[in-house]
Amino acid sequence: MAIPKTDLPVSYNDITEAAQLLAGVVVRTPLLESSVLNKQVGGRLLFKAETLQVTGSFKFRGAYNHIKRLPTSVKQKGVVAYSSGNHAQGTAAAAHYCETPALIVMPKDAPEVKKQGTARWGAEIVSYDRYGRETREEIAGQIADDRGSPIVKPYDDRFIMAGQGTAGLEIIQQLSERKLQADRVLVPCGGGGLTAGIATAIKFNNPNTVIHTVEPEGFDDTAQSLKLNSRQPTDLAIASFCDALLAPEPGLLTFEVNRKLCGPGLVVNHTEVAVAMAAAFQHLKLVLEPGGAVGLAAALSGKVELDGVTVILLSGGNVDPLVFSNILQNGK
Amino acid sequence: MAIPKTDLPVSYNDITEAAQLLAGVVVRTPLLESSVLNKQVGGRLLFKAETLQVTGSFKFRGAYNHIKRLPTSVKQKGVVAYSSGNHAQGTAAAAHYCETPALIVMPKDAPEVKKQGTARWGAEIVSYDRYGRETREEIAGQIADDRGSPIVKPYDDRFIMAGQGTAGLEIIQQLSERKLQADRVLVPCGGGGLTAGIATAIKFNNPNTVIHTVEPEGFDDTAQSLKLNSRQPTDLAIASFCDALLAPEPGLLTFEVNRKLCGPGLVVNHTEVAVAMAAAFQHLKLVLEPGGAVGLAAALSGKVELDGVTVILLSGGNVDPLVFSNILQNGK
Repeated sequence: MAIPKTDLPVSYNDITEAAQLLAGVVVRTPLLESSVLNKQVGGRLLFKAETLQVTGSFKFRGAYNHIKRLPTSVKQKGVVAYSSGNHAQGTAAAAHYCETPALIVMPKDAPEVKKQGTARWGAEIVSYDRYGRETREEIAGQIADDRGSPIVKPYDDRFIMAGQGTAGLEIIQQLSERKLQADRVLVPCGGGGLTAGIATAIKFNNPNTVIHTVEPEGFDDTAQSLKLNSRQPTDLAIASFCDALLAPEPGLLTFEVNRKLCGPGLVVNHTEVAVAMAAAFQHLKLVLEPGGAVGLAAALSGKVELDGVTVILLSGGNVDPLVFSNILQNGK
Repeated sequence: MAIPKTDLPVSYNDITEAAQLLAGVVVRTPLLESSVLNKQVGGRLLFKAETLQVTGSFKFRGAYNHIKRLPTSVKQKGVVAYSSGNHAQGTAAAAHYCETPALIVMPKDAPEVKKQGTARWGAEIVSYDRYGRETREEIAGQIADDRGSPIVKPYDDRFIMAGQGTAGLEIIQQLSERKLQADRVLVPCGGGGLTAGIATAIKFNNPNTVIHTVEPEGFDDTAQSLKLNSRQPTDLAIASFCDALLAPEPGLLTFEVNRKLCGPGLVVNHTEVAVAMAAAFQHLKLVLEPGGAVGLAAALSGKVELDGVTVILLSGGNVDPLVFSNILQNGK
């Protein structure tokens, strides 16, 4: 199949190349299904369980694809990243596998489980105040300059988007094994890197599939940006327990992709996310973090028509035990 | 490869036939790994996640293999089963897929999540008192006689053992894809049906692999029976939160297999199981029920040498939210 040329910042070819690089390192996560949930929503839901990926989220894919490509001389100096937690762990693990030191700038209020998960891979952690004077980009930029190290961006990067897109390639293969095509794909969206990668992979294979971003209330910058067709910022002073999805605005590169390839953005609230986490516990036997559950939350709360086949990205499972148990005990 | 004749109650051939019957219905559950847990135990652990099977446990495999083979005239009358919960759900789902009515005899104190899971598939439920005068076998036998229905036994049956063994076939294929062989396999053991099936599949392919049953304290009838080489009963008055593993004694047929194919049985206590459930939450992002976690509990508590490659069956994930959240909140 000839690959059409594109002017977008990430191409299908980038993704197939990433898949080759990641083979044998990445987990080919399963595409799961629950007849109970299907019955509940009156459609067919297929769940891409990136919770079972190395470090418990999809972020390992992009980070590895980025770091593995660095020249040896650069790798020796180590890499720097900033992240609320999942990209931190993904980068730390990828750096470990590439035998590269990693320094990660993380917010002070990042979940404990994510800080531990990052430190466990041998990464150095520098904390910052999310509501403070300096942005994480500034802090990380300063450190990277001092060390002569490259920054592994969380989403606004060709190789990061391509790495995340390998999950989309797997979805296509896994649908094809079942002789299915997706009518729509629901993707949890922070900065938009996973969405851009997934959309590039899926739309190349089936232009009729609709890609919906899903965001938590208060952080619906992508939904607003898609609606207005230009990047809209969000209010960083708002809190959300979807800590994985707190991007201040869509990425420059990711939005260039997503504005062309995505349908309307969906938005879910705290209660809908909690219900989704409890449903995944009960019917899928999977641990989802709040940000990883927004796609399921959108489906269960009727934010989109679910006729035909819907693929839902379960993007991460790194949640503190106390948060999770509170959700189970409150029954929603 | 020629299949050697065997006098045992289940053969490798039975299992490959079951796999053909189950193809397209059963979930080929993933074989997962955590580098954190590997590092913690100083060996390589591979987890067969039967928690992701239809109905949240391996039991669907055997029940479907049994019911699907029944003549149409028998299927029309419906099937009867007795079970503490996972076989109940497995039988209810299998009967549903085979368009057969199902009646399940369940203990009054079965976890709510398992009763709901059974009713959801359209099965009729009859409750009994586990500490009462009549055994579940007697109650189910009476109903089956009245209806002219067959009983789908929980473990002591050729087709049930063969169905459960299909998980073993998958393990062999999944190890082979990674160019690995298992040094040992840890299998949660109630009546011994899963163990018998897994052992038959694995030992046929690699006679050097050691199969260890794992049981909760107080219900170590198989460990005792293996040690004494004859079936030993357990004390039914004892309580355990491993509700899936409360068999009164090893099955007649299952023990005939397991005495020939298994190494020493392992035993774990309540605390070790709770620690394993919390570890699976944190490092595997999987929901395990107590009985489904005993294999991991044995590994983490040092009940067996873990050099080389160890496969651990995670046999089920049907746990009440309150039980699970209590374990997370107590930190172990």
